[in-house]
Amino acid sequence: MRHPFPFSAIVGQDQMKLAMILTAIDPGIGGVLVFGDRGTGKSTAVRALAALLPEISKLEGSPTNAATEAEMPDWADPVSGNMVNVPTPVVDLPLGTTEDRLVGALDIERALSRGEKAFEPGLLAKANRGYLYIDEVNLLEDHLVDLLLDVAQSGENVIEREGLSIRHDARFVLVGSGNPEEGELRPQLLDRFGLSVEVRSPNDIEERVEVIRRRAAFDTNPDAFVEKWSVEDAKIRDAILAARDALKSTDAPDDTLRDCAGLCVAIGSDGLRGELTLLRAARALAAYQGSPIVTRDHLRSVASMALSHRLRRDPLDDAGSSTRVDRTVEEVFA
Amino acid sequence: MRHPFPFSAIVGQDQMKLAMILTAIDPGIGGVLVFGDRGTGKSTAVRALAALLPEISKLEGSPTNAATEAEMPDWADPVSGNMVNVPTPVVDLPLGTTEDRLVGALDIERALSRGEKAFEPGLLAKANRGYLYIDEVNLLEDHLVDLLLDVAQSGENVIEREGLSIRHDARFVLVGSGNPEEGELRPQLLDRFGLSVEVRSPNDIEERVEVIRRRAAFDTNPDAFVEKWSVEDAKIRDAILAARDALKSTDAPDDTLRDCAGLCVAIGSDGLRGELTLLRAARALAAYQGSPIVTRDHLRSVASMALSHRLRRDPLDDAGSSTRVDRTVEEVFA
Amino acid sequence: MRHPFPFSAIVGQDQMKLAMILTAIDPGIGGVLVFGDRGTGKSTAVRALAALLPEISKLEGSPTNAATEAEMPDWADPVSGNMVNVPTPVVDLPLGTTEDRLVGALDIERALSRGEKAFEPGLLAKANRGYLYIDEVNLLEDHLVDLLLDVAQSGENVIEREGLSIRHDARFVLVGSGNPEEGELRPQLLDRFGLSVEVRSPNDIEERVEVIRRRAAFDTNPDAFVEKWSVEDAKIRDAILAARDALKSTDAPDDTLRDCAGLCVAIGSDGLRGELTLLRAARALAAYQGSPIVTRDHLRSVASMALSHRLRRDPLDDAGSSTRVDRTVEEVFA
Amino acid sequence: MRHPFPFSAIVGQDQMKLAMILTAIDPGIGGVLVFGDRGTGKSTAVRALAALLPEISKLEGSPTNAATEAEMPDWADPVSGNMVNVPTPVVDLPLGTTEDRLVGALDIERALSRGEKAFEPGLLAKANRGYLYIDEVNLLEDHLVDLLLDVAQSGENVIEREGLSIRHDARFVLVGSGNPEEGELRPQLLDRFGLSVEVRSPNDIEERVEVIRRRAAFDTNPDAFVEKWSVEDAKIRDAILAARDALKSTDAPDDTLRDCAGLCVAIGSDGLRGELTLLRAARALAAYQGSPIVTRDHLRSVASMALSHRLRRDPLDDAGSSTRVDRTVEEVFA
Amino acid sequence: MRHPFPFSAIVGQDQMKLAMILTAIDPGIGGVLVFGDRGTGKSTAVRALAALLPEISKLEGSPTNAATEAEMPDWADPVSGNMVNVPTPVVDLPLGTTEDRLVGALDIERALSRGEKAFEPGLLAKANRGYLYIDEVNLLEDHLVDLLLDVAQSGENVIEREGLSIRHDARFVLVGSGNPEEGELRPQLLDRFGLSVEVRSPNDIEERVEVIRRRAAFDTNPDAFVEKWSVEDAKIRDAILAARDALKSTDAPDDTLRDCAGLCVAIGSDGLRGELTLLRAARALAAYQGSPIVTRDHLRSVASMALSHRLRRDPLDDAGSSTRVDRTVEEVFA
Amino acid sequence: MRHPFPFSAIVGQDQMKLAMILTAIDPGIGGVLVFGDRGTGKSTAVRALAALLPEISKLEGSPTNAATEAEMPDWADPVSGNMVNVPTPVVDLPLGTTEDRLVGALDIERALSRGEKAFEPGLLAKANRGYLYIDEVNLLEDHLVDLLLDVAQSGENVIEREGLSIRHDARFVLVGSGNPEEGELRPQLLDRFGLSVEVRSPNDIEERVEVIRRRAAFDTNPDAFVEKWSVEDAKIRDAILAARDALKSTDAPDDTLRDCAGLCVAIGSDGLRGELTLLRAARALAAYQGSPIVTRDHLRSVASMALSHRLRRDPLDDAGSSTRVDRTVEEVFA
Repeated sequence: MRHPFPFSAIVGQDQMKLAMILTAIDPGIGGVLVFGDRGTGKSTAVRALAALLPEISKLEGSPTNAATEAEMPDWADPVSGNMVNVPTPVVDLPLGTTEDRLVGALDIERALSRGEKAFEPGLLAKANRGYLYIDEVNLLEDHLVDLLLDVAQSGENVIEREGLSIRHDARFVLVGSGNPEEGELRPQLLDRFGLSVEVRSPNDIEERVEVIRRRAAFDTNPDAFVEKWSVEDAKIRDAILAARDALKSTDAPDDTLRDCAGLCVAIGSDGLRGELTLLRAARALAAYQGSPIVTRDHLRSVASMALSHRLRRDPLDDAGSSTRVDRTVEEVFA
Repeated sequence: MRHPFPFSAIVGQDQMKLAMILTAIDPGIGGVLVFGDRGTGKSTAVRALAALLPEISKLEGSPTNAATEAEMPDWADPVSGNMVNVPTPVVDLPLGTTEDRLVGALDIERALSRGEKAFEPGLLAKANRGYLYIDEVNLLEDHLVDLLLDVAQSGENVIEREGLSIRHDARFVLVGSGNPEEGELRPQLLDRFGLSVEVRSPNDIEERVEVIRRRAAFDTNPDAFVEKWSVEDAKIRDAILAARDALKSTDAPDDTLRDCAGLCVAIGSDGLRGELTLLRAARALAAYQGSPIVTRDHLRSVASMALSHRLRRDPLDDAGSSTRVDRTVEEVFA
Repeated sequence: MRHPFPFSAIVGQDQMKLAMILTAIDPGIGGVLVFGDRGTGKSTAVRALAALLPEISKLEGSPTNAATEAEMPDWADPVSGNMVNVPTPVVDLPLGTTEDRLVGALDIERALSRGEKAFEPGLLAKANRGYLYIDEVNLLEDHLVDLLLDVAQSGENVIEREGLSIRHDARFVLVGSGNPEEGELRPQLLDRFGLSVEVRSPNDIEERVEVIRRRAAFDTNPDAFVEKWSVEDAKIRDAILAARDALKSTDAPDDTLRDCAGLCVAIGSDGLRGELTLLRAARALAAYQGSPIVTRDHLRSVASMALSHRLRRDPLDDAGSSTRVDRTVEEVFA
Repeated sequence: MRHPFPFSAIVGQDQMKLAMILTAIDPGIGGVLVFGDRGTGKSTAVRALAALLPEISKLEGSPTNAATEAEMPDWADPVSGNMVNVPTPVVDLPLGTTEDRLVGALDIERALSRGEKAFEPGLLAKANRGYLYIDEVNLLEDHLVDLLLDVAQSGENVIEREGLSIRHDARFVLVGSGNPEEGELRPQLLDRFGLSVEVRSPNDIEERVEVIRRRAAFDTNPDAFVEKWSVEDAKIRDAILAARDALKSTDAPDDTLRDCAGLCVAIGSDGLRGELTLLRAARALAAYQGSPIVTRDHLRSVASMALSHRLRRDPLDDAGSSTRVDRTVEEVFA
Repeated sequence: MRHPFPFSAIVGQDQMKLAMILTAIDPGIGGVLVFGDRGTGKSTAVRALAALLPEISKLEGSPTNAATEAEMPDWADPVSGNMVNVPTPVVDLPLGTTEDRLVGALDIERALSRGEKAFEPGLLAKANRGYLYIDEVNLLEDHLVDLLLDVAQSGENVIEREGLSIRHDARFVLVGSGNPEEGELRPQLLDRFGLSVEVRSPNDIEERVEVIRRRAAFDTNPDAFVEKWSVEDAKIRDAILAARDALKSTDAPDDTLRDCAGLCVAIGSDGLRGELTLLRAARALAAYQGSPIVTRDHLRSVASMALSHRLRRDPLDDAGSSTRVDRTVEEVFA
Repeated sequence: MRHPFPFSAIVGQDQMKLAMILTAIDPGIGGVLVFGDRGTGKSTAVRALAALLPEISKLEGSPTNAATEAEMPDWADPVSGNMVNVPTPVVDLPLGTTEDRLVGALDIERALSRGEKAFEPGLLAKANRGYLYIDEVNLLEDHLVDLLLDVAQSGENVIEREGLSIRHDARFVLVGSGNPEEGELRPQLLDRFGLSVEVRSPNDIEERVEVIRRRAAFDTNPDAFVEKWSVEDAKIRDAILAARDALKSTDAPDDTLRDCAGLCVAIGSDGLRGELTLLRAARALAAYQGSPIVTRDHLRSVASMALSHRLRRDPLDDAGSSTRVDRTVEEVFA
């Protein structure tokens, strides 16, 4: 349980960091897909997130991190009622996780014979109110990704088997990393992630030297290094908490809605998830920046992460999808 | 168990909504296939349907939603005899559902040793007198689709294993959504769905803004939003109930029969399921519109949804199948 | 258990109906394959058959429909000895039937430990003295089709496992439907079916209107409709019973035998099953028509159904196989 | 257990009948492969063989048809010691036979816990001293064919599992039928069959009429038909018994050995099994014909059945392999 | 348990030997991949390593080779507290190892029923503080390689099943051998190995004679041979121990960091693992050679083993990857 | 348990017989691969080997043929201590052997519950100090071949499962036969066999007649035939025993080592196993021929069997690999 590398000490990778901050403000934005070459620090960033996020207050002993007695599932053992503060859960999905391990295991025989609800909660219970991270999500079986997205969207994990029905809260943000060179996600699944960002190795020598220097410093003396960056991490954490409060009162005028729709029509994204997500992400950004209304600038800043994975592939245009989104934004907002 | 988005608040998508209304009037029309891009609100519409449909009256505790003692299956535990009103069941088939979970599980050993019929009913029992929804039906194994269509058509679920025979009513309308870009259904299966409709994202900016606006309103304050649209939903519900009563007395004259046959010969649909379904859908529409007889106009309105999935593919004609049906209707009825 | 659509009310489809009648007269003709597009009423016809066929007299409680004590298998529980009349069994093979469900399940452990023959008879026992129907036989695994044909030919179901040997009568006619567009049967299996017929949707408008009209009448008021056609059904049933009696005394002169052989040589069918089946089918037709001897006309009427599935494919001749058989008949009998 | 069609009543098919007779005289010749189109009476011939073959004398109750106490396997229950005459076993390998069913099942647990040899003998035990017939041997899994040939060659079935070793005599002739159009046997397996013959439908009308006539006579009155041909069957049976006695004293002079080797070199058959089998088959034929020495004529008569499945395929020579063997025989013996 | 061939007696193969020495100094460098033809002594070298490496001091009886009580996992049985010196573990992964055998087996039932942590540690526990060797790593299933690399990187083996969580130290260096002609590792996995080296058979006759001579000497009299080379082995062992102590004080000046980054940019390796590993390996080499600072020469010596498996394949450059790395080093450091 | 065909009565096949003799003298040479057409007597030769080889002296009842108490595995039941002479074991690997049957089965549950080592030794235990024969080794699964070669090389069978570790001696020579036309071994596996020989049917008529004559004599009167050849067999057996004693004192001068290396470099065999095996085989031959030193002539005699399976395929040279080895030998030794 070593302390992870501090979030604010990550060199560059601004889009990835922003996407994580926005979903920390409004988890309703949905999951985040992080594409990128190996060795670009995707896992490091997710592990860093765990230390950055604000703590949550939960009932001590609750298997689903319940905040109130009302949120306790009926199958769980009773708890003392004491509240404790714990880090926001960031659950790492191990390779080869079974469906049982993920959704929880139901001991039918025991349930029927003893009349007890014999349920052993899984990783989805652990991830409630936090993050669920999947490395190389493109290698996971489609039906598990689908199941994860279903639960993430509904905020509830329902296990129904042979007449028994178990349910518990499972509100979390799914973060998946993938290497575009190794298998692709079906467009159906891509579309169900809220945001996507791409990370690349820096080409600037000094930036790379900075990466090596910070890493070496962290490897040599982790405690001192973490201490040094804790102030920066705290600033981000405070801004997230403030933005959460401001979210409901951050207004999206009709012009902004029209901008959203116009942009998506221009881009030709399938369905309407594009504009719905674009609006939510822009609203979270406005709140993070302390702006009372959502403006074109906010849309512009998050358009690429909200829309680039919703583009149809265009064989005649070999620009990357982020570039294509940005270009369209410039034309539409010109 | 949040209240779903109201059916009448869905912007556009008229064919899909009509298909669902017609099968609510005459479930004998058969299942509905909804084709369309991701993000076009297919799931939203099915979930909306649950709140729209008239309630059913059932024996309290009946595992198959039995309306009378006579409809109670012999393997079920006795019930009190009290009647209760419950929403029309809309059962969602989870991904990776097993055959056991679907048709019910029979505990042979217990049945033989204790002489009891040890049957744990499945989703087909739950769906009796309602709807069964399958997202991405094209990804389901053929034999399960086939089984579902068999049961939907016969209205009865029969499980026979090792000399034991369990049966119960399973009258429901199958609604399947699919993305034509991902795998196709075998023509044999396509033909066994009653109706098919295609949904698309609107291209009109104002229409899209309206979608965003309603969605944002629903997300912000669901209760107020649902309340606001409940009147519209009630109107549709009442019209469905009236049409059910009128159905038997809605007459189809010989000219209408000849129109059905002529249309199907012109279109070259295989077999005779095309005209049989066309007639039933048109009759339901007539009843919904309060017309005592089925006319050419009724046929015209439902021809596309009754016939377009029964066309043979024509490699020389790249018009979509709805267009081809509509064109033939105009020629034949000219 | 609704009454099926009456056999005689089926519009057209004369070859299919004749093939079923001939096998009802002489089950030794072997199985019937029905090829055709979807929606052409193949399943309807088989279900209609159940109501048409003469009843059989069996020992009450016999799991194999035994007609006499001598026919009772030794593993069956003793029966009262009362005779009952029951409809000719028409057993429908459900999709995904296992081999155990088909041939019966043998509980080895119980057999060894208690010394009892613990056998749970399967669908083959139920089908004894009747029909076994397989929809889409081309989708069934080859080894199951092979097993079914073996049993159908020998009239006996033998299960041998670990030194135990269970047997019972299993005399039935196999009826399989198939869609030639979806997978084909191996020639080895094709050859083992006695007869084959092809069904098509009618192209005549009035014929199609008649189909719709009768179907609508049946859907509206099944009892009245069945009653109306019961006289026609009874006529066919009586003719079948009379033909069964006449069969043994219906003579096939040497010229007829020579016609059979000459026709098969001209057609080039593999092996000798072609002429053996042709002769049996012609003899049954003669008996059905009350003729004391089998003539060329009888051969002509059944040549196509007895031989067309035994033709080798001829890539230079794109006429259908029925046409090729009929053409050869005209040449040889000219 | 109806009486099969008599062996001598089979019209034509002389090579197939001769191959079966020769292996009845000297089972050491090895298995027989029968190639041919469907419907040419392969199964009929094998079933006919059962009734033709001389009876064997065995210890009553012996699971392996033991002729003496010394031949009784040590794992078998003791028997009374009475001798009984039973038909030569002709065991039919059912489709989908498992390895356990074939070689016998060993109950390890019982063997270890009670110290008893808990062995349930399989079909190989039943086939001892007789024939084992496999329809469509080309569809059987290679490892089962290989196992069968191993046992047939060694005359012993050895089951070794977890330190236990069970063995029993399993001397039988393997007869396999196959359709060359459906999958082929690996050359390795082909070579391990002693003889191969090809059967075809006759093209002569009168011969075909004769087939139909005899079949119809058999179907109409089996008992009379079998009675009529029993004299012919008995003649063959007696000749086989006489030949068995004469076999050891039938001499093969050096010239005959040289003819065998010369023929195989000329043909280019792989390995030496060709000439070894050729000699054995010729010696059995000589004994059957009452000749004291094996001559060129005997070699000539059996060359095709002993060698044609050992030819390498020659893409430049499209004559069938029998023809190629016969042609070489004429050249070498010219 | 014969004594393996001595490490220092291996003729040539300097890169492979150096890579193993460097990871013995700093296991944080990560795993080593050894590519090469068969018969080039890869396994011999790994087995030789076992005898070369310094002994470790561990708690007697500890299943994870714990050095202190604090390192003992909570699920392990208590130990006496005596310290023992044992050889550095070199664990050989047997072919077909299961995941259970690797990570350890958890007896859930026992854990739940008796309240004990019923854990049977696997090979990862045995390998703690040592080496884990996989022959033909390219034939291992990807998910196992991935799991191994995950554990190797985190230094901890975590098994989570049904609510139970077992963990123990698993700090080891993974050594994998592979034959590039037989299947390849995914780039994702390649990148996670620290170093890679290629071994080849020598082409020099005298060198090969020396190999044969030493091998023959070892085969004839292993004890004498091992004794003879023990002095050389001890020298290497002592140098490794000294380098471990010097590692922390071996300094990497900014110019060296810039050289690392510049080299990786020039080479175009993906991500930043290249330079991080390069620096660690160079630092270990400097320490081994007694140099207080890391210089260009150290980078030059290890560049090929740290970077060549991180190159993208260049279809226009058919030089091997080591050559390409060396060439770039010369250009950048010119 | 009939006496096999005598080794010395095998006509021709000198290379195969020599390879077997050499491995009988020095099992450290490794396994033998016998390639050849079917029917060339490969199995006959291996079975003949069993009768030729000198007997071994073992502890009566030892499951691993232990020669001394020290060699008894700890898991075996105690034995009386009497020594018995038994034939050198030649174990035949049955088709479809499982890994358990091969390496032995470990009853984990019993081991844990009763504290006994419940191990049922497998074929590897039986083969200790003898030969293990695999017919058609190219059809065996790679991982089993690999496992067999691992054990053969290490001389020890280690079974590790769930914390239990079972080991026993397993020193044997692996003999595999294969047909090059049916699947190939991976080069990795090929290289791990010590020797390879190719067998062919003789083309000389008199040689073939001799084969037939001897076989017929053996079939007619096995005892007399075996008796007749026993003197020849005994000569070979005595020479093997003498060579074993002479092996250690048979010297390989430096020139011979240089010849080995030079030959392998000229041939371009991968790795160094080629020359190591070449030297061992030549030394065994020298000892067999009573020569005190290993000369070029000895190398020449065994070069083909030691090296031909280690050649890389050369698409431009269609000579067989033996020919290529022999040609190179002539050039290098010219």
